[in-house]
Amino acid sequence: MTVAVGILGATGAVGQRLVQLLAPHPEFEIRALTASEASAGRSYGDASKWRIESPIPDAVAEMTVTETTPEAVPDDLDLLFSSLPSDIGREVEPAFCEAGYVVSSNSSNARTADDVPLTVPEVNADHIDLIERQRDERGWDGALVKNPNCSTITMVPPLAALDDAFGLDRVTVATLQAVSGAGYDGVTSMEIIDNAIPHIGGEENKMETESRKLLGEFDGASVSWHDTRVEASCNRIPTLDGHLENVWVETTADATVEEAAEAMESYPSLELYSSPDQLVHVFEDPERPQPRLDRTLEGGMAVAAGGLRSTDGGLQFNCLAHNTLRGAAGASLLNGELLAEKGYI
Amino acid sequence: MTVAVGILGATGAVGQRLVQLLAPHPEFEIRALTASEASAGRSYGDASKWRIESPIPDAVAEMTVTETTPEAVPDDLDLLFSSLPSDIGREVEPAFCEAGYVVSSNSSNARTADDVPLTVPEVNADHIDLIERQRDERGWDGALVKNPNCSTITMVPPLAALDDAFGLDRVTVATLQAVSGAGYDGVTSMEIIDNAIPHIGGEENKMETESRKLLGEFDGASVSWHDTRVEASCNRIPTLDGHLENVWVETTADATVEEAAEAMESYPSLELYSSPDQLVHVFEDPERPQPRLDRTLEGGMAVAAGGLRSTDGGLQFNCLAHNTLRGAAGASLLNGELLAEKGYI
Amino acid sequence: MTVAVGILGATGAVGQRLVQLLAPHPEFEIRALTASEASAGRSYGDASKWRIESPIPDAVAEMTVTETTPEAVPDDLDLLFSSLPSDIGREVEPAFCEAGYVVSSNSSNARTADDVPLTVPEVNADHIDLIERQRDERGWDGALVKNPNCSTITMVPPLAALDDAFGLDRVTVATLQAVSGAGYDGVTSMEIIDNAIPHIGGEENKMETESRKLLGEFDGASVSWHDTRVEASCNRIPTLDGHLENVWVETTADATVEEAAEAMESYPSLELYSSPDQLVHVFEDPERPQPRLDRTLEGGMAVAAGGLRSTDGGLQFNCLAHNTLRGAAGASLLNGELLAEKGYI
Amino acid sequence: MTVAVGILGATGAVGQRLVQLLAPHPEFEIRALTASEASAGRSYGDASKWRIESPIPDAVAEMTVTETTPEAVPDDLDLLFSSLPSDIGREVEPAFCEAGYVVSSNSSNARTADDVPLTVPEVNADHIDLIERQRDERGWDGALVKNPNCSTITMVPPLAALDDAFGLDRVTVATLQAVSGAGYDGVTSMEIIDNAIPHIGGEENKMETESRKLLGEFDGASVSWHDTRVEASCNRIPTLDGHLENVWVETTADATVEEAAEAMESYPSLELYSSPDQLVHVFEDPERPQPRLDRTLEGGMAVAAGGLRSTDGGLQFNCLAHNTLRGAAGASLLNGELLAEKGYI
Repeated sequence: MTVAVGILGATGAVGQRLVQLLAPHPEFEIRALTASEASAGRSYGDASKWRIESPIPDAVAEMTVTETTPEAVPDDLDLLFSSLPSDIGREVEPAFCEAGYVVSSNSSNARTADDVPLTVPEVNADHIDLIERQRDERGWDGALVKNPNCSTITMVPPLAALDDAFGLDRVTVATLQAVSGAGYDGVTSMEIIDNAIPHIGGEENKMETESRKLLGEFDGASVSWHDTRVEASCNRIPTLDGHLENVWVETTADATVEEAAEAMESYPSLELYSSPDQLVHVFEDPERPQPRLDRTLEGGMAVAAGGLRSTDGGLQFNCLAHNTLRGAAGASLLNGELLAEKGYI
Repeated sequence: MTVAVGILGATGAVGQRLVQLLAPHPEFEIRALTASEASAGRSYGDASKWRIESPIPDAVAEMTVTETTPEAVPDDLDLLFSSLPSDIGREVEPAFCEAGYVVSSNSSNARTADDVPLTVPEVNADHIDLIERQRDERGWDGALVKNPNCSTITMVPPLAALDDAFGLDRVTVATLQAVSGAGYDGVTSMEIIDNAIPHIGGEENKMETESRKLLGEFDGASVSWHDTRVEASCNRIPTLDGHLENVWVETTADATVEEAAEAMESYPSLELYSSPDQLVHVFEDPERPQPRLDRTLEGGMAVAAGGLRSTDGGLQFNCLAHNTLRGAAGASLLNGELLAEKGYI
Repeated sequence: MTVAVGILGATGAVGQRLVQLLAPHPEFEIRALTASEASAGRSYGDASKWRIESPIPDAVAEMTVTETTPEAVPDDLDLLFSSLPSDIGREVEPAFCEAGYVVSSNSSNARTADDVPLTVPEVNADHIDLIERQRDERGWDGALVKNPNCSTITMVPPLAALDDAFGLDRVTVATLQAVSGAGYDGVTSMEIIDNAIPHIGGEENKMETESRKLLGEFDGASVSWHDTRVEASCNRIPTLDGHLENVWVETTADATVEEAAEAMESYPSLELYSSPDQLVHVFEDPERPQPRLDRTLEGGMAVAAGGLRSTDGGLQFNCLAHNTLRGAAGASLLNGELLAEKGYI
Repeated sequence: MTVAVGILGATGAVGQRLVQLLAPHPEFEIRALTASEASAGRSYGDASKWRIESPIPDAVAEMTVTETTPEAVPDDLDLLFSSLPSDIGREVEPAFCEAGYVVSSNSSNARTADDVPLTVPEVNADHIDLIERQRDERGWDGALVKNPNCSTITMVPPLAALDDAFGLDRVTVATLQAVSGAGYDGVTSMEIIDNAIPHIGGEENKMETESRKLLGEFDGASVSWHDTRVEASCNRIPTLDGHLENVWVETTADATVEEAAEAMESYPSLELYSSPDQLVHVFEDPERPQPRLDRTLEGGMAVAAGGLRSTDGGLQFNCLAHNTLRGAAGASLLNGELLAEKGYI
């Protein structure tokens, strides 16, 4: 089976990662690439200023970029990936869904909408069936599925493992986020060399809300958000890729460090093509995980954890994931693979 | 009045900062500089590989470095500053105290000993009188006074302000620490470029214990440690100077963001020569304080805070201080000034 | 005497450095600040996102920014500094000169024009009198004076010293330039962390032409460019401030390393307020100068040299200057001080 | 055929790269790992603090590290790779050669000795036969072969291409070298963050001598060094891997930019297992090659060139190679493959 896919917003940092992941994909085949009006009509090699360490795939480099409208892309695409800026995504994604396209989107708009599935397949694949309600309510032939923010994705797998095993009452998290999370032009060098920025606009709120929706229960009609308290503090630091997070949790049942590590390591992955063999890897060395050394674990699709330690009433640990692979492009890709498996495309 | 001072461990990163601060000091005059056996007998300009942005003071450059023993330094020194490695400090500092020297030390040994004052003058100057007990018990003519670890100093002034105003029940803190905190050779470039390290050996424990001693009550005989819970997670990041910290507190009495900011800004400083005019500066811009922009506030002796936000049951804020000025050399210097003011030298 | 000055393009990286230098200036007083239409009408504190380590001067923060037109600034200004983008400078600076303003400009437009003085006061102050011809030819009451590009300024003082003493036949230079040279938003963090860029558009050409005009002879009517060959290769590296350069020269007369060092160290500075006491400082340690340690030498207004070594037919050396102080804002300021001294304002 | 190999100095930065390259090698099999006395007897996983992005190969992690003496390693090894510190290599390598081992060494000792082949296989494979003379003169059963310094290797392939096509009269080179070139602990973070160092002890001399030996003629008995003049200036910058170099050459015959690019691109590679398909890749974009984007070209074994430009009497270009792959571990490995092909093992 070949799934014909398109990428909305293909020239940006996440779009380039999508191209990198999709080019060798055994089932998904890139048939359309969209970008802003200024890029439309140019070759992808020309329009994207390719900034990834591995070379731009030749076949993709020669494709012509189109505008980001339903009219400009082929009718027979099975699936669209969207890595549009959220203000553009908000306008454009519903138009594609209405025109019948199924969209797996990394953009931040609509993530907390009641009828939009927000999924990390290994954690809450069942939420995908919110699509039924979405189609009913909106009258769409297409569908809109979201993955969460990169900083949320990093902590959700270990949190889900702890929640399943012990119950979660409270989460406190400080992040050390890489500059690629802001897009290619998002952080200037003068802002960040020999520096750190203790706030990322909107990011704290995304972590505090998206994580509770993801960990919530879906009853076939709606998602009841998890009632754990989540408090986040987000920092930008001078790393290129890989978000590192310090997490404190209070659990309902007591958990030893060994039990917590076991819960994380045994948390099941899926059989999707891009899923890691093991979703969460736990390091014993308290100085790991580190962004540069551990962000490419299992092709950048696993989450690394470490530094587990008991606290009064809970646990403390660190976690890390590659923010543009596991945290963005790979997250959208996994959702696309889930959509295919579930028969939505 | 001129106070004759010596620096034990004068060639290291903190020793150089002490030289930088002492050279223009109106009352303190450098009369002795000690280092390892290998440096003894050489000029300071030669033995220290000076790495500070401002030039090495000429007069100090020409002084001869001696060994770090009571016999090797002049008898008539009024005060010694110690920035020795802690394993050496542990051996050598008591010998100096026994020989009659008053030592203001930045080394981590003995900080939590019952009869050793651990002071940040603006916060707990009264603890200095533990010296009486120390002299009684140890039979010393000299005295040993400690300042806390750089990451502890950064958060203690805003915490003290909140404790005074509202009472503290719980503190959770994640740090983003500069490489200079580990000394000149402490962090290699290959460890930290494009990277972060989520653990600093011993540092979490120092923050969790020293802060409680500092915030404790001194009854004239001993210090009752504060019973607040403190949980720290320490990270090293690629910045040169300035420790940034994300702090969550639970307060006994409710505190609004405005009240908390007011408590911090109005927390009194002292009239010591090296004290800042205002101890804690609160930024309204949530992206401040930043290490590169704010670490030199008031000559590097003030603490910057920002990002104040209400949480369930408490407050969240960020704070920053220059780790080798306010957090180390400047901290020892302030303790020296306090010793002079209190008549201990 | 008080000189009333304005800054055209006051909110950018160089504009902020001009504010920093002018605020404490004993003779120059800021009376006007201009920026783009979007900033006009706002306070400078609000319109400029101040990014310098020292705090924004209070009095300047409260000034209102105006548009960059002759109509929008007061009539009675004695001197304008321009740090406009070159495409805007090209349009706007002549309009100000025609309206009678004397403009000391850091913008790259018109630097090699026949009737525009391109000056580094300590090197070629006499070229300033090209203003006479400029006024004749253009019918201006005002005047336009330029300083060279930051990478050119860095090498010109040591080159001028060698040229005076031995004659210059050939110059080959490789630069390691700081990100601030491209302006605050000029280099993104993803471009430069763990990276270097071996070309800076237009920069090689500027170094190759501007240096020859600067080192040329002015006969009262026109400047005969120096006929030395100059070949430059410009690299961007991950430093914040300070351009480091590797230079090879072939001299007409033979020069030993000692003679060359002596020529550099004894090259005269001027008595202008912002001139360094000694223009070129020569380090013996071959690992110096280094950007972080040496860029603030003499308040960032001196040039540091080092690594002198004989080669077949010539010499090799390194040099360094602070690119936004000595190389931009300070360069314009010195030209302003020269204009005042020469009676042009 | 399986070649049994050992690595002398296996725990260092280059030793780890050798392990990474050898683990999947189809013909070479790691049978011995040596290190300092302190590491002997420990498992490699324990003794090496593995710092490479890809995980440590399991089978190698379990091997026991031995001391670096001929007695401590198995007799039946076919080939030893040496990445010892040069002072230790100077002592130990001859002992291994005398004991009958063939050693492919990256250490800097003995590189310019008359009877020691210094080879980059694609450039001067014929020099390997110096082994005959070496064995005659030294009475060894084994043999010692060297690869040059990482900064030399980077420029030699494009220089060899130009020399073959046009003849070389003069080479001037400025380097921008990564911190990994100094080994894991070679450059501290405080030395290099926001900084650059304009001298690397011994490095300039290595580039100036080794390149002339490599480009020299071997007449079956000795190597006549190339008589081109080479002048190098070496800088350390804050990049992790990848040495970037700015090169100026004067050629005997005139060469256009197009002819020079053609000469580089068509310069033949070899059929050795680790040779790149194309030795030198020439970029048209003058902003390439860049360390982070281009250091892993062809698995880090190719050289990237760019920025070709005509100068008076010659050419200017930039080149880049991965300093611990192409420039060190991969260079030794290629020499090992050449030794196997030539029948020396």
